[in-house]
Amino acid sequence: MDSGKYAIGIDFGSNSARALIIDVATGKELGKGVCEYPGGDHGVFTDPQNHHLARQCAGSYCHSLKETVTTALEEAAGKPGFSPEKIIGIGVDTTGSTPIPVTEDMTPLSFLDKFKDNLNAKAWMWKDHTSMEEAAAITEIAEKMRPQYLKKCGGVYSSEWFFAKLWHCLKVDPEVFNAAYTWIEFCDYIPAVLAGIKHPDEVKRGICAAGHKAMYSEDWNGLPDEEFLNALDPELGKLRSRLYEKAYPADEIAGNLCEKWAEMLGLPAGIPIAVGAFDAHLGAVGSGVGHGSLVKIIGTSTCDIMVSPSSHKLPDIPGVCGIVDGSVIPGSYGIEAGQSAVGDIFNWFATKVCLGHHEIFKGLTEEAEKLRPGQSGLLALDWNNGNRCILVDPKLTGMVLGLTLHSSQAEIYRALIEGTAFGAKKIIDRLEEYGIHIEDIINCGGIAEKNPLFMQIYADVLNRKMRITGSGEACALGSAIFGAVAGGGYPSVEAAQEKICTCKDVEYLPDPENVAIYQELFELYSELHDSFGIKETSFDHSGIMKKLLSISHKVRK
Amino acid sequence: MDSGKYAIGIDFGSNSARALIIDVATGKELGKGVCEYPGGDHGVFTDPQNHHLARQCAGSYCHSLKETVTTALEEAAGKPGFSPEKIIGIGVDTTGSTPIPVTEDMTPLSFLDKFKDNLNAKAWMWKDHTSMEEAAAITEIAEKMRPQYLKKCGGVYSSEWFFAKLWHCLKVDPEVFNAAYTWIEFCDYIPAVLAGIKHPDEVKRGICAAGHKAMYSEDWNGLPDEEFLNALDPELGKLRSRLYEKAYPADEIAGNLCEKWAEMLGLPAGIPIAVGAFDAHLGAVGSGVGHGSLVKIIGTSTCDIMVSPSSHKLPDIPGVCGIVDGSVIPGSYGIEAGQSAVGDIFNWFATKVCLGHHEIFKGLTEEAEKLRPGQSGLLALDWNNGNRCILVDPKLTGMVLGLTLHSSQAEIYRALIEGTAFGAKKIIDRLEEYGIHIEDIINCGGIAEKNPLFMQIYADVLNRKMRITGSGEACALGSAIFGAVAGGGYPSVEAAQEKICTCKDVEYLPDPENVAIYQELFELYSELHDSFGIKETSFDHSGIMKKLLSISHKVRK
Repeated sequence: MDSGKYAIGIDFGSNSARALIIDVATGKELGKGVCEYPGGDHGVFTDPQNHHLARQCAGSYCHSLKETVTTALEEAAGKPGFSPEKIIGIGVDTTGSTPIPVTEDMTPLSFLDKFKDNLNAKAWMWKDHTSMEEAAAITEIAEKMRPQYLKKCGGVYSSEWFFAKLWHCLKVDPEVFNAAYTWIEFCDYIPAVLAGIKHPDEVKRGICAAGHKAMYSEDWNGLPDEEFLNALDPELGKLRSRLYEKAYPADEIAGNLCEKWAEMLGLPAGIPIAVGAFDAHLGAVGSGVGHGSLVKIIGTSTCDIMVSPSSHKLPDIPGVCGIVDGSVIPGSYGIEAGQSAVGDIFNWFATKVCLGHHEIFKGLTEEAEKLRPGQSGLLALDWNNGNRCILVDPKLTGMVLGLTLHSSQAEIYRALIEGTAFGAKKIIDRLEEYGIHIEDIINCGGIAEKNPLFMQIYADVLNRKMRITGSGEACALGSAIFGAVAGGGYPSVEAAQEKICTCKDVEYLPDPENVAIYQELFELYSELHDSFGIKETSFDHSGIMKKLLSISHKVRK
Repeated sequence: MDSGKYAIGIDFGSNSARALIIDVATGKELGKGVCEYPGGDHGVFTDPQNHHLARQCAGSYCHSLKETVTTALEEAAGKPGFSPEKIIGIGVDTTGSTPIPVTEDMTPLSFLDKFKDNLNAKAWMWKDHTSMEEAAAITEIAEKMRPQYLKKCGGVYSSEWFFAKLWHCLKVDPEVFNAAYTWIEFCDYIPAVLAGIKHPDEVKRGICAAGHKAMYSEDWNGLPDEEFLNALDPELGKLRSRLYEKAYPADEIAGNLCEKWAEMLGLPAGIPIAVGAFDAHLGAVGSGVGHGSLVKIIGTSTCDIMVSPSSHKLPDIPGVCGIVDGSVIPGSYGIEAGQSAVGDIFNWFATKVCLGHHEIFKGLTEEAEKLRPGQSGLLALDWNNGNRCILVDPKLTGMVLGLTLHSSQAEIYRALIEGTAFGAKKIIDRLEEYGIHIEDIINCGGIAEKNPLFMQIYADVLNRKMRITGSGEACALGSAIFGAVAGGGYPSVEAAQEKICTCKDVEYLPDPENVAIYQELFELYSELHDSFGIKETSFDHSGIMKKLLSISHKVRK
């Protein structure tokens, strides 16, 4: 079944990168290379004085690019039929929004002696939150001047996003800002490097980063207009002409592998490089996202990715992070939602409250598995890191209710999992309310693979089948799919997915008895959700503790 | 300063008893004896099938009575000037409501062969909660027939109280109920034993147990009337004539030490024995309770005891457990309020959540002391064991709000202490609302002596001076005061208190800066308290998490 064609997918995560070489016909993995980013704290540069700051080095990205691809090629070299000449395309995904300031000749500012130790000249990592004030100001100004800009991104501009970061740099370090010809997203930078692009104006920017993080839309001919950017700061207005006019979906070719990088990697020059996109979005593609299937990428936070045919115009959906035409699969709207903390909440509880190491999860899980839904009488709001969807409010906090003198670690742990599941249901309910049908959930990430308790609770709360993506490297696989499509191996992403994407055999089905109990608990969660999360929504909460006790009593019988 | 007069105070707690011999003039301790109750689990008999059940053995009470007094006498024997002949009176306090079924010749049923292994024939310990249904029915029937009965005890009859227990025994074990001539409270039983009372009708019952737990009041000529008891069950109606017509304050003489017990204890016969009362009430007397001073007995739960002159008729105070004329100091109303869990909440958190042993408190406290009020952004409702005052609702549960991914054990621990302090403030505010002035708080119990963090938080939240009672055995000291007064050593309890009661040198004064922050937090606590605790009270809670974050931000600056 060797098609004689191969593709490379490269995934740049928060602390490491990996490259995957696949057989285009089957998706079979021939080689893999992984590389931790050198420098900093696991590749992240921080400021002890400001815990919001998180920067990375473009140099370590390039180092990891070389290491991962050459390692993967070494492994593939031994496989029958494989040769580097048979690679038809390369796809790339990265974290984001992670903008990098570059000079007119595409040099990241941090490569210059003058700026080599300046954190502001590095890549501004997605989780850098130094730009909170600028984000709030962008929201405020957009609400007045260009409300349409916000509607596509859930109603609130985030400190994690492109323009907030550029503006913050302008304010705190104008020397860096002025030295930059322009700023390029990490996911656009890597394809440009591979293709040997000589000038920033020639870089093909991806629709994924542009649409989800930079308020780009065909509806208003691209990026925010100059008048709006001038209202933020005239220097941002001036920058606009050095950004970009048009953004492209990831099945387009960003360029072809240049001589220099071909030699460094041990590949023939000229291989098509797909336009870059974000890791979550391509992870969803690698997991088999399609109409009716929501892909949930579960990690410290979660990202929920869906697609909906572009032929049918979607309304704006309040409280959903972003809807961008072509950001996941060309010809479909890409819909991105998510929860700001999921695994992080479990980690917080295990390490900060229980003071346990990672092994503690085994014991917590064993005990929590013995509990029936509703038995503990506990209910949690999963807002320990704010609420990304559907309330879009970073200034909300977590809560545990129903505590008695008998409440145990395992009971609280289970209530926290259930709280995140109720949060997930809020997102799905909102999407369905706006006409998007969700049949089942394909899950991706370590928690999905390793935590059957989590998966069963979600199946019961969401009342939907929970599946697990077949690939352990869904993001890199998604990138490889775009490499394959860009290289002509398939006529469309969907055609490639059909051959390549799989799910594991294990499936989690809702248990009707649990579904019924969780329906009762979800009503109580919703009562708290609305009264604590939505302005001018009042409830008489005097029934809630008694209702929890009576559910607990009923379940224990 | 030896007056040549001594008194004995005997305090029967939940798991042990202690006797104290004091110099009547100064309160100086000459001897002490302590005895754990033999049998059961630390003296408590339980039923693995029913965790609400808690019974004790009248035999172990008598054993401990002998052990503690003889040990105390041995110690005192060596002291200059002391001799047993100089003992002028004996006072007794016990836990309660702890009714004991007895025969017509004053024999506890559990002493009979027939009933020796029957848990229902033992003393029904205060914390026995088997009678919840009966308590609810008493509340319901009283609301219809005799609403005045409930107004003196906070509006709700408790499963811990006298008639609920008797009724439950009648239902589950009529053989025991019928074999009992009558039921005597633990605190009335011990003085009767010492005085060698031969018939239950001759036992002088204390106003403290009668008024606080058996709906006794001069306003309706004593116990609930027969018609009301018949409405519960005609058998209870029939029992009424074998209960009592009149109850007495603890400065009256219940009887004089009989020959048998005089010989057993090594004391002269004829020493006056004061009428018995509850431990918390006499602990308040031993701590120096007086007009304007609230005594807080802080343990697993708390008991708040105050007095108010009987000359000025007190209104009924909703949500306060009980107001009984003469139950603490003759000539004053005794007011009892309290919180159903305080130390228990800290123990729960330390052992069930942090999985620590008792030593963990040291570390938690050290860390929590470093935090400023409001800094953590956390707020807790202290209802892990329901709410005794002022909501009188056992079906409320605890809550922690404001959790982030950084919330630490120490932050949560501090928030739990603060939550109990806010609960304590609710009681004080309610009392003041009804015209009872509270100047300062005298505290009693291990937490008060050993936990300066707790004391400072309470001083700041309550905005009042917090003092600590001078005696390590305030209950036994209070009993000894009544022994001294009954024996003619003082003309009044107040006169005795003035000479005998002291406070420790250390005092906790409110810090104005902390007071201001806690005032803000208390407003938020009150918002939650009312919306979760009071029917048909609604709040828009959308501001509460943001307000906590902004207080935290302000405090951290």
